Amino acid sequence: MEDLYAYDAYCFDLDGTIYVGQMMLPGVNDFISGLRSRGKRLLFLTNTPVHTREDCYKRLQSLGVSCQLGEILTAGYVSGMYFAEYAPDANVLVVGEEALRRELQGIGIAITEDPYRSTHVLVGMDRQFHYDKLHLAAKAVRHGAVLLATNPDSCCPVQGDIIPDTGSILSSIEAASQQKASVVIGKPSRYYAEKALQLLNVNSSRCLMIGDRLETDILFGQQNGMKTALVLTGISLREDIQKTGIVPDYIWPSFNECIMEQQDHSKHSTVLQVEKA
Amino acid sequence: MEDLYAYDAYCFDLDGTIYVGQMMLPGVNDFISGLRSRGKRLLFLTNTPVHTREDCYKRLQSLGVSCQLGEILTAGYVSGMYFAEYAPDANVLVVGEEALRRELQGIGIAITEDPYRSTHVLVGMDRQFHYDKLHLAAKAVRHGAVLLATNPDSCCPVQGDIIPDTGSILSSIEAASQQKASVVIGKPSRYYAEKALQLLNVNSSRCLMIGDRLETDILFGQQNGMKTALVLTGISLREDIQKTGIVPDYIWPSFNECIMEQQDHSKHSTVLQVEKA
Repeated sequence: MEDLYAYDAYCFDLDGTIYVGQMMLPGVNDFISGLRSRGKRLLFLTNTPVHTREDCYKRLQSLGVSCQLGEILTAGYVSGMYFAEYAPDANVLVVGEEALRRELQGIGIAITEDPYRSTHVLVGMDRQFHYDKLHLAAKAVRHGAVLLATNPDSCCPVQGDIIPDTGSILSSIEAASQQKASVVIGKPSRYYAEKALQLLNVNSSRCLMIGDRLETDILFGQQNGMKTALVLTGISLREDIQKTGIVPDYIWPSFNECIMEQQDHSKHSTVLQVEKA
Repeated sequence: MEDLYAYDAYCFDLDGTIYVGQMMLPGVNDFISGLRSRGKRLLFLTNTPVHTREDCYKRLQSLGVSCQLGEILTAGYVSGMYFAEYAPDANVLVVGEEALRRELQGIGIAITEDPYRSTHVLVGMDRQFHYDKLHLAAKAVRHGAVLLATNPDSCCPVQGDIIPDTGSILSSIEAASQQKASVVIGKPSRYYAEKALQLLNVNSSRCLMIGDRLETDILFGQQNGMKTALVLTGISLREDIQKTGIVPDYIWPSFNECIMEQQDHSKHSTVLQVEKA
């Protein structure tokens, strides 16, 4: 990378990229200030269905990250956009938390608890998931409801632990209903990328996707024509690149190191190395 | 089938074969009496982990089926036999119901709630399954515990409904832990067949497996050298034979019809037809 600021638009994942729990990751604010001062377009893209866009906005504000509500997409919100676009009359049985219901209702999508009246089952991470919800969701799908999920992640790192995410709940409903989900909304889906690029209004090749997960963030960027940077502050390790075969354009130990490197104008960068296969 | 009583031993599935809910299926008692009077060896093989052998024995007794406790194998009990044989010092984290715990404890297998002290995670159908159990089980597996399941069934027919079974709960734990189960005990497993054949003490080719599920009962018989009869009183339909490619040796609409057919000594049987592919 000759110039850290060479792109027109920058997409950031949140957890593991901007912050971990309540802790800001090093260099984030300096990097974002640098982008803002150069007039770059920014978007924050998270796969979480358990926080609303509003929740994410407040959190970024409280951590001192300069952003607007319109610069944030969550998998829950984009799921709502999907219904508004393709099934505005849907009657959705939600396996998920309150934030997901609020995002759907905010967009005017109807929600039901009745498996026989539901047209769709939308599955998101749900920390109150239990057998009866599994039974109800499977019953709705057997009765003809279309199965969708907010995001594919099977697990989610939190401070000191890894907890089950949407993908693991979805697996149980797929097995019990003997139907695979027809649509999975979050990164790396094309639909999520379309919504992001529409908001940014730039050509995907002028956009850098920065994230900490190879299978979602980096794959998402690659499959949708963006350049990609893996930050090593979250879930994916350098050795996972070879294991997964998902090779980012850039690997950054942290934003701090890549900013320092940029300031040194080093020609033989070890930090901002391009390890394209 | 020239003679309904041509075999030395007969294995019966329970649900959908002997009874559905509290209702005995037609001809069961007559058929079993016929076998008893001819001195045949019998075994009742169920994939359920939510009833103990004792529960099944009492139920069969209450429905008037002549049997002994030693003629019954459940997936939960055979899971206990597996631990006793291959991992007698196991410390098992159980995702399952009380019956499964009782079967393990009855065989002297230690049970723990601590994911860091468990050596194995055993998954069975659990109508009190919830997110925290999913989290705990996945944590144990990530920490090195071996993942096993009592039976593969993803769903289970009950009167007027289909409910999630072991396989769907297992799927969520496999996804969250990113590990596939190393052993699945119930039908159609070889281990379950070994235990059954040891009890019967007959050559598998002299044994007829009778059940209502192609993917478990009939496949179980076929994979383990037995002859097989599908009764159409439970979950599998005649048309499922072509769909699954699992072809039983005999197809019986019910025991009643196959006994009547036998009494007619019909040479051109339509009921006891052999439809081997």
